Amino acid sequence: MRRLKTIAVIGVGLIGGSFALAMRRAGAVTRIVGVDRDPQALERAAALGIIDTAVQTCAEATAGADLVFVSVPVRAIGPVLHDVARALEPGAVVTDAGSTKADVIRVAASELNDRMASFVPGHPVAGREASGVEAAVADLFKGARVVLTPEAGTLPEAVALVRACWEACGARVTQMPAATHDGVFAAVSHLPHVLAFALVSEIASRADAAELLGFAAGGFRDFTRIAASSPEMWRDVALANREALLAELDRYLARVAVFRELVDKGDGPGLQRLMIEARNARRAWAGGKRSSSDE
Amino acid sequence: MRRLKTIAVIGVGLIGGSFALAMRRAGAVTRIVGVDRDPQALERAAALGIIDTAVQTCAEATAGADLVFVSVPVRAIGPVLHDVARALEPGAVVTDAGSTKADVIRVAASELNDRMASFVPGHPVAGREASGVEAAVADLFKGARVVLTPEAGTLPEAVALVRACWEACGARVTQMPAATHDGVFAAVSHLPHVLAFALVSEIASRADAAELLGFAAGGFRDFTRIAASSPEMWRDVALANREALLAELDRYLARVAVFRELVDKGDGPGLQRLMIEARNARRAWAGGKRSSSDE
Repeated sequence: MRRLKTIAVIGVGLIGGSFALAMRRAGAVTRIVGVDRDPQALERAAALGIIDTAVQTCAEATAGADLVFVSVPVRAIGPVLHDVARALEPGAVVTDAGSTKADVIRVAASELNDRMASFVPGHPVAGREASGVEAAVADLFKGARVVLTPEAGTLPEAVALVRACWEACGARVTQMPAATHDGVFAAVSHLPHVLAFALVSEIASRADAAELLGFAAGGFRDFTRIAASSPEMWRDVALANREALLAELDRYLARVAVFRELVDKGDGPGLQRLMIEARNARRAWAGGKRSSSDE
Repeated sequence: MRRLKTIAVIGVGLIGGSFALAMRRAGAVTRIVGVDRDPQALERAAALGIIDTAVQTCAEATAGADLVFVSVPVRAIGPVLHDVARALEPGAVVTDAGSTKADVIRVAASELNDRMASFVPGHPVAGREASGVEAAVADLFKGARVVLTPEAGTLPEAVALVRACWEACGARVTQMPAATHDGVFAAVSHLPHVLAFALVSEIASRADAAELLGFAAGGFRDFTRIAASSPEMWRDVALANREALLAELDRYLARVAVFRELVDKGDGPGLQRLMIEARNARRAWAGGKRSSSDE
C-alpha cells in the first residue's frame, strides 16, 4: 500500500492504540494524530509513543488526515462523525471499528451526508481481556478477521485503502453486506454474550449464589467468561443489533426446547444424537484451539 | 490417615488413574489392583506403573481390598456394584466418582443391600480436556473440590476413610445431601453443558454453519468449549439428574425471557442493570481465574 502521511485515531483505547501500533510497525504511516474524550488515556497514548500528536477535538484530528479511524463505543460514533464531517479533507477516507454495522451505517449516513461515499464500515474481530491503551499491542490484529461492509455507493478506492491498511496490520479482510454481518455476529458473538450474562445473572440472584459458585468448575468458568465483559458495550450491541439478536435468540430457544423435551422424555438416543453433532462440529472448528482473539 | 494395604480401582481412566497416582504419591496405600472393561487401558495402566496388579473381574479386584474405588461411567456403576457386593471384605469401604449422586445411591442400595452402609457416594469435581489413563496425573485433585453425599445409614468410619483418602490426594472435601449435590451441579455444571451443546447443535444444523463458524472468535470458543465433551457422559448425566436439570433449565429460560423482553423493548437501563449484576458476580467469583479444574 502507499504510505499514508497522516492517520487520525479517534478513541485511543485497545483497538485504536493497537491499530496505530500495527500501522506504524508496518511502515504504513508517517504521522499519527490521536484524540480521546479521556484526557488521561490520550496523555498515556502520547507518552507511550502510540500517537505522535495529541489534539483536543475530532475536527483537529481530522484536519490534514488521509484516513480517520474511529474506534469509540458504537453509541458515540454519531457525534464523532458529526465533527469529522466538518473537517474531512477532500479524498480522505473514514472507517470505524464498531461491532455492529447496519446501525453505524444509518448514523453515518445522516452525519456524513455527501461524504458518505468515503466511509468504509469495518469490524475488526479482535480483542483482549484487558482494555485501554496500555493493553494495545502491535500484533492484536495478526491473523484476526476484519469484516468490511461497504454500501453500494461506497467509493471502491476508499474500500481498497481500508483493506490495505488492515492487511498491513496482518488481518484477514472479508467483505459482506452489513445485514449479513449483523446476522453472523448475532449468532456467534452477541447471542453467546447475552446467554452468558443471563446464566450468571440468574445464579447471582439466588440466596445460595455463593454456595453454588463455590462448586462451579472449569466448564462454568469458560462458559461464563464473557459475562465479565463490559455491560455498557454489550447493552449497546444488543440494542443496536436488536432484530438480528432477537431472531437468533428465538432460534436458540427453539433448540433448547428440543433438548428440554428430550431430557423430559428421557430420550437418550435423541439427546446423544444432537450432542454428537454438536461435539463433532465443535471439534472440527478450526477456531476452537486458538487462544488470543476475542470480539 | 492409616496406610491402606490394598485399593481396588475399578475403571482405570483419567479419574481412577489419577486417584491411584495421588494415593501412591501420598504414601497412603501399599498395593493398587486395577480392572477395566477395556483390556488395552488396563494394560497401559499396569505398564505405566499406575496399578500394581491387573485383574480381569470386579470380584477379583474387590477381594482383599480395604477400599474399592469405582470410577466408571454412571450407567455402568450398577453392574459393577453387583459384582463388588459379592466379594467385598468385612470392614471394606466402597466409594464412587459419579457426577450425579441420587441416582447412584438408588442403584447402589439395590445392589449392595446389607453392605450399603459401607458405600460412600462421592464426586470429585475435577477433570481435564484429555481422557483415558494416559492423561492421569497425581495432582489432578490438588485443590479440587470433592463432594461426599453419605446417607443417614452410612457408617461414619467409612465416610472418614474416604474423606481422608481425598484429603491425602490434596482435595477439599465437602459433605451434603445427595439431592443438594444434584441441584448444585445441575445449576453450575449440567445446565451449562446442555446450553453449550444446544448452541453448537443449532449453529451446526444450518446451511451456512461453516461461514458462521469462520467468524466465531474467542468468546464463542470459550462459551462452547464444553460442547466438545463426551456426548455419552453428558447424555447420561442429563438423564440421571433429569428433575434437577429441568428445574434449572426452566429457571434459566425464565431469565433469558427477561433479557429477551428487555432487548425487544429496547430497555437499555434494564439490560445494563442485569448485565452489571452478572459482570460483578462473575468478576468476584474466585474460581474465575483458575485454569486447571473441570467437571
